[in-house]
Amino acid sequence: MSESKLVIRPAQSLDREGIWRVLAPVLKAGETYALPRTWGRRQALGYWMAVEHRVFVAESPDGEIVGTFYLQDNQSGGGRHVGNAAFVASPGYGAGRQMGEFALKEAQALGYRAMQFNFVVSTNNRAIALWTRLGFRVVGTLPGAFNHPERGYVDALVMWKELLPSEQRAPDAA
Amino acid sequence: MSESKLVIRPAQSLDREGIWRVLAPVLKAGETYALPRTWGRRQALGYWMAVEHRVFVAESPDGEIVGTFYLQDNQSGGGRHVGNAAFVASPGYGAGRQMGEFALKEAQALGYRAMQFNFVVSTNNRAIALWTRLGFRVVGTLPGAFNHPERGYVDALVMWKELLPSEQRAPDAA
Repeated sequence: MSESKLVIRPAQSLDREGIWRVLAPVLKAGETYALPRTWGRRQALGYWMAVEHRVFVAESPDGEIVGTFYLQDNQSGGGRHVGNAAFVASPGYGAGRQMGEFALKEAQALGYRAMQFNFVVSTNNRAIALWTRLGFRVVGTLPGAFNHPERGYVDALVMWKELLPSEQRAPDAA
Repeated sequence: MSESKLVIRPAQSLDREGIWRVLAPVLKAGETYALPRTWGRRQALGYWMAVEHRVFVAESPDGEIVGTFYLQDNQSGGGRHVGNAAFVASPGYGAGRQMGEFALKEAQALGYRAMQFNFVVSTNNRAIALWTRLGFRVVGTLPGAFNHPERGYVDALVMWKELLPSEQRAPDAA
């Protein structure tokens, strides 16, 4: 599989089966997301496609959904200037990277001042390498916060990236 | 107002008016929680008394509700061994401290291995002093993550406390 350019677009209702095919193996493995491994199609899609999520899909050149992410306010009220996103990708398409870059541009266009990931499992090396390459840094470490099915209790990381040009940042966000 | 011992008990449906009286001024001020300042009674109670929250109230000796907190899993799946809680107290009763101590015992009884606060506003000195006194430490700092109505963008803290005796902790949680 070559890493050709994927089409990334807002998800539609009829994308659900494709989204579920991408989500199912990741949820079942339970190694990267703090979500119930027992979730079926209905619960998983109900969560992923919740009304407060802006859901996107990544489509391969032959029209197959090979990745999905959502974007949302990480907090409400006084915290809604910080975005949050979650990504799931089928391996081998470069979907993670392409969706990550797309999500950051989208977040910037929506006016978010920063992007926060609340719970990056510390054994998820691919994700950490990707986010680091895209400019994220670790702003918090949650000791033993994730019960990995193989490795037991491992840390989870809080990762952060400013989206504003540096001269527009609050002093404490420099 | 003396800081007499409050009765802390699970909330009942009929406590809603008392809970709303405690929540309303705190939400309206918008200085300590990342929740919409515009929320009315219905939205605020719908959030606070959500089915996944174990809700408690603190009652003064004359039967007035002077504080409320909820306890929940901070994450699902592989993250559900860490608890989360949120507290709102009317000033002058010592309700924050009494509820905090109660919540930690309750969390321990429920089998949580740790308690995590995701978003303690860094200007909320009373809360930070209280949580520090109860054994919490800062495990993350979110730069400018809260837009304070008076002070603008200020940091929010991620705070953490282990609930297990130290010999039972995972090595990375020591």
